[in-house]
Amino acid sequence: MFQSFDVTAHATAGGERLAKLRSGLDEIGIDALLVPRSDRFQGEYVPGSEARLAWLTGFTGSAGIALILRDSAHVFVDGRYTTQVRQQVDLDLYATEDLIKNPPRLWIEENAPQGLRIGVDPWLHTLADMRLLEKAADRIGGTIVRLDANPVDAIWHDRPAEPLGKISLQPEQFAGRPADEKLAQIAGAVKEAAADACVITDPSSIAWIYNIRGSDVPHTPHPLAFAIVDKDGGSRLFLDDRRVGKDTAGHLSGLTALEAPGAFETALTALGKDGAKVMLDPNLAPARIAGLIDGAGGKLVEKADPARLPRAQKNAVELAGSRTAHERDGAAMVSFLAWIDRQQPGTVDEIGAVRRLEEARRTTGERLQMPLLDISFDTISGAGPDGAIIHYRVDTGTNRSLKEGELYLVDSGGQYQDGTTDITRTVPVGTVGKEEKRFFTLVLKGMIALTLMRFPEGTRGVDLDAVARTALWKAGTDYAHGTGHGVGSYLSVHEGPQSISRRGLQELKPGMILSNEPGYYREGAFGIRIENLVAVSEPSPIEGGDKPMLGFETLTLCPIDRRLVIADLLSPEELSWLNGYHARVRDVLAPLIGLQEDRDWLAAMTAPISQDRQPAAI
Amino acid sequence: MFQSFDVTAHATAGGERLAKLRSGLDEIGIDALLVPRSDRFQGEYVPGSEARLAWLTGFTGSAGIALILRDSAHVFVDGRYTTQVRQQVDLDLYATEDLIKNPPRLWIEENAPQGLRIGVDPWLHTLADMRLLEKAADRIGGTIVRLDANPVDAIWHDRPAEPLGKISLQPEQFAGRPADEKLAQIAGAVKEAAADACVITDPSSIAWIYNIRGSDVPHTPHPLAFAIVDKDGGSRLFLDDRRVGKDTAGHLSGLTALEAPGAFETALTALGKDGAKVMLDPNLAPARIAGLIDGAGGKLVEKADPARLPRAQKNAVELAGSRTAHERDGAAMVSFLAWIDRQQPGTVDEIGAVRRLEEARRTTGERLQMPLLDISFDTISGAGPDGAIIHYRVDTGTNRSLKEGELYLVDSGGQYQDGTTDITRTVPVGTVGKEEKRFFTLVLKGMIALTLMRFPEGTRGVDLDAVARTALWKAGTDYAHGTGHGVGSYLSVHEGPQSISRRGLQELKPGMILSNEPGYYREGAFGIRIENLVAVSEPSPIEGGDKPMLGFETLTLCPIDRRLVIADLLSPEELSWLNGYHARVRDVLAPLIGLQEDRDWLAAMTAPISQDRQPAAI
Repeated sequence: MFQSFDVTAHATAGGERLAKLRSGLDEIGIDALLVPRSDRFQGEYVPGSEARLAWLTGFTGSAGIALILRDSAHVFVDGRYTTQVRQQVDLDLYATEDLIKNPPRLWIEENAPQGLRIGVDPWLHTLADMRLLEKAADRIGGTIVRLDANPVDAIWHDRPAEPLGKISLQPEQFAGRPADEKLAQIAGAVKEAAADACVITDPSSIAWIYNIRGSDVPHTPHPLAFAIVDKDGGSRLFLDDRRVGKDTAGHLSGLTALEAPGAFETALTALGKDGAKVMLDPNLAPARIAGLIDGAGGKLVEKADPARLPRAQKNAVELAGSRTAHERDGAAMVSFLAWIDRQQPGTVDEIGAVRRLEEARRTTGERLQMPLLDISFDTISGAGPDGAIIHYRVDTGTNRSLKEGELYLVDSGGQYQDGTTDITRTVPVGTVGKEEKRFFTLVLKGMIALTLMRFPEGTRGVDLDAVARTALWKAGTDYAHGTGHGVGSYLSVHEGPQSISRRGLQELKPGMILSNEPGYYREGAFGIRIENLVAVSEPSPIEGGDKPMLGFETLTLCPIDRRLVIADLLSPEELSWLNGYHARVRDVLAPLIGLQEDRDWLAAMTAPISQDRQPAAI
Repeated sequence: MFQSFDVTAHATAGGERLAKLRSGLDEIGIDALLVPRSDRFQGEYVPGSEARLAWLTGFTGSAGIALILRDSAHVFVDGRYTTQVRQQVDLDLYATEDLIKNPPRLWIEENAPQGLRIGVDPWLHTLADMRLLEKAADRIGGTIVRLDANPVDAIWHDRPAEPLGKISLQPEQFAGRPADEKLAQIAGAVKEAAADACVITDPSSIAWIYNIRGSDVPHTPHPLAFAIVDKDGGSRLFLDDRRVGKDTAGHLSGLTALEAPGAFETALTALGKDGAKVMLDPNLAPARIAGLIDGAGGKLVEKADPARLPRAQKNAVELAGSRTAHERDGAAMVSFLAWIDRQQPGTVDEIGAVRRLEEARRTTGERLQMPLLDISFDTISGAGPDGAIIHYRVDTGTNRSLKEGELYLVDSGGQYQDGTTDITRTVPVGTVGKEEKRFFTLVLKGMIALTLMRFPEGTRGVDLDAVARTALWKAGTDYAHGTGHGVGSYLSVHEGPQSISRRGLQELKPGMILSNEPGYYREGAFGIRIENLVAVSEPSPIEGGDKPMLGFETLTLCPIDRRLVIADLLSPEELSWLNGYHARVRDVLAPLIGLQEDRDWLAAMTAPISQDRQPAAI
């Protein structure tokens, strides 16, 4: 299993850990401490050795930060985790706060006492984040104290060792472009920015540039490593050589100089001493890196990571890989959903479903000779009210059976060498009520509306976010998460800079892969989400128009449960899309499915739907 | 007439003026000069004495800037004016540039020679704008030279005198709130920003705060004046006392100290010398004001103009006024459109139509005892291909008759003491083709889609802009302007901070008035725009939902030409909205219309439309 179901929240130890941490504050001369979820790489997953926030507070979500003061403590989380944080964190110890509307910097300005000295580990905060914190501290006459050692580590006696995950190659047959060409592209960006070198701190950029993959963190196959790329295309990759096998060493030796991670700080200081102009991304690079460079006399050139945008625009080989990965993944999903559907209500639980789904991906991958290398994130397997917890992660403490009359929401994905998948389906267990169907149909309308969009060059994610919400807004509801995130190519399932959300200021470019996943969540009752991945298509002309328009190609192939669709609430255009999609799903997946009973289920689930009458008022 | 039709473009004199201007550059030690459309108040209209850009280049649009170098000259305009600028400016003298994608600061960075010294008049550029220019100059090793005198003025011998427009009262029966309460609110914002005083530089804020109106510029009844409001609520209003009558003097004397405009610079310097913290809006205040304050030792507190947001959220009295103004304006529009419709094609021209429309507003205002005080902007009266010029302003040189088989687009508005209107209708002259009807219906679909939106608190204009574009995007086209702008209450017809556009980051709040005006423009052929004003409504619950939703109340009342609607392209929801809107238009306007033949026309134009068949593919 790529996923564990252990209860990771240790609310019982929380008081003792918090007390120990507080007792150490005086010694280092601070009044407060920030404990972010992030490690030095600002990725979604952190190795066990870096899971300070979870160890301290019990909160295991993928984004968050704690602010520990002497007489209060606060955990800041976003809308995805408002329910989860209340379950995981000891609310006698921690107040929960809104990470988006009231992040620590605003909280500090409005609530912190004058002159507060706030300790931070500068490896764990980006340069941009650090500046905002310093501004906030300044406003209350306080100070941000950049700590040399992390106070959590000092009291964390059973802290796991740092990972030494093996590095593997991502050959050109999947990457689509040779690494030396990518390095030359990065060097070109360095020259264009009139810089001497660039520090690459995003492990997904490291993976993309060098055509390598890693195994340091769960579910995202990027290697935790930093690199420095010079303007002439030379580069140094800071990577423990125990992680590199012979093949990989051969590949890398032709491309870059491998150096020990311990040499990184020295290299940064040396760049500074040389007075070099060093490019870095203030929204990704740890403040510590910037501090080492400019502290030694170097000049910072602040620019977006030059690998981000080209990485997001998948090339034809990567897109072809993604299509194949989605066919395989769809076949696995069908065998899983068909199996679920054959079970008596009440006989399967959330954990059992996750096991079965991983098994389906594993066996399908083996059969189709492209093995499942990991799941792309911990499966969200929520029955009934658990479906309303947006980023629910089942454990043995919360496990629940799939009961008659309830909805079951399953959000999951696979990592294959040819692509990363991410799919959500919501299905009925037995017969469900009218209310569930009505909101399922409204969510579906949103998903289809976005799928069918055409848009001119220059359109950004923010311009399209409301498209997926309109049907729900008109029904008086909304979902507390973005509509879509970027997805990598056998890389992170949550990839920037592309997104479809209120904050999605990146223009959508051909080749970008994004999720399309509106939802509806009724706390304590049920949750609905329908998610397909889509790729932004090249602009193409439309008859009678004057401007070529981009659009979306749907990658995900899996039935959308027709038993939950109230056809009369769909417009003719929406219904036609759904029937066309199902026909395609059936045609493509049927040949890939092993069991006849699964093929029969697929045929039934993709049969065309017709309307009884005119579209009715919703 | 509130509008003139003189040809204002003097492309013939352009060469001589440009040569004179260039010949003076050496004397003041600069290599280049920026000549913006703006005056010191950054408003949409400038008095004749400030129309430097038009005098120099011939370009009369409401936004733009010229960059004069020794061997080239450039006029930067936005998408609204790309056609107009090519008609008004001598293209042998000036290159035209894209003000949005490639504004002067980017142009300078990419094209200007190293070390260029660029002269600017710091009264005419905002502080924020000046900083961007300085950054750009810095990147090419150049300098922005803040000039003490404007070089255009030095060669502009027949420059008109500064306006001394009379100040009038806007009584509480229309303003809805007393001025002393508003002043106290501004003083509260100054205190909250920990500042000592605030400079108000937006004339519409002056008008709103003091409940006064002005007559310095065409079409926008705000007085060109600056004010300084102290944290204790005391204030100084810098206004020539020849502009103030007895009544107004009485009103103002209880509220503020009137000082001569010439005392303004001295007052700013004095604040600086006292070391005061002075609040100003970097996006509105001239760089010169900031320079005087911090040059003398004061501290700038940069915040948005504290009057902007409260001014945008109209109170109940202002909303009631707007509704009444729109009824009156709708009656005038009906009598105008009915008249147009009775004329033989080819017998009316664009100028004649503008005259007739102003006359209709004037007589309707008199009859209903609320006179037309001004038009709210120069009427856009475009027949056939002239309709495709987005901000077309007819003059005797371009005047064209309304010909059989063509579309006629008319975008106009009135200033009444109870409200400002802005309406666009596109009508057929005789019988028009299928293509015109198809695009008219697509534009209408966009306008209806936005009208029918519901949305949660926190939604911004940017989140809704694409809603009005979707039907056009799917047909392979778009319009090169925002979907909606804010509208004042007997103030500017283009009011910030609210807007519905790519840049509309302001949250939409109840009481804000906005336009909803998608369009379609086929250069050289025809233009279509349909515009209603809407007011953002209070959040209200929706049955079955869990979140109260805001929405739009349509203020504009006037038929949308049903002869151009292809009913089969509308969804049942869209058709139902249109028929409902027309029923309301008929019921409200019929009693306000003077002529029986106009009432008959209204009845015919608002008759329900039915569909022949199912909605067809577009």
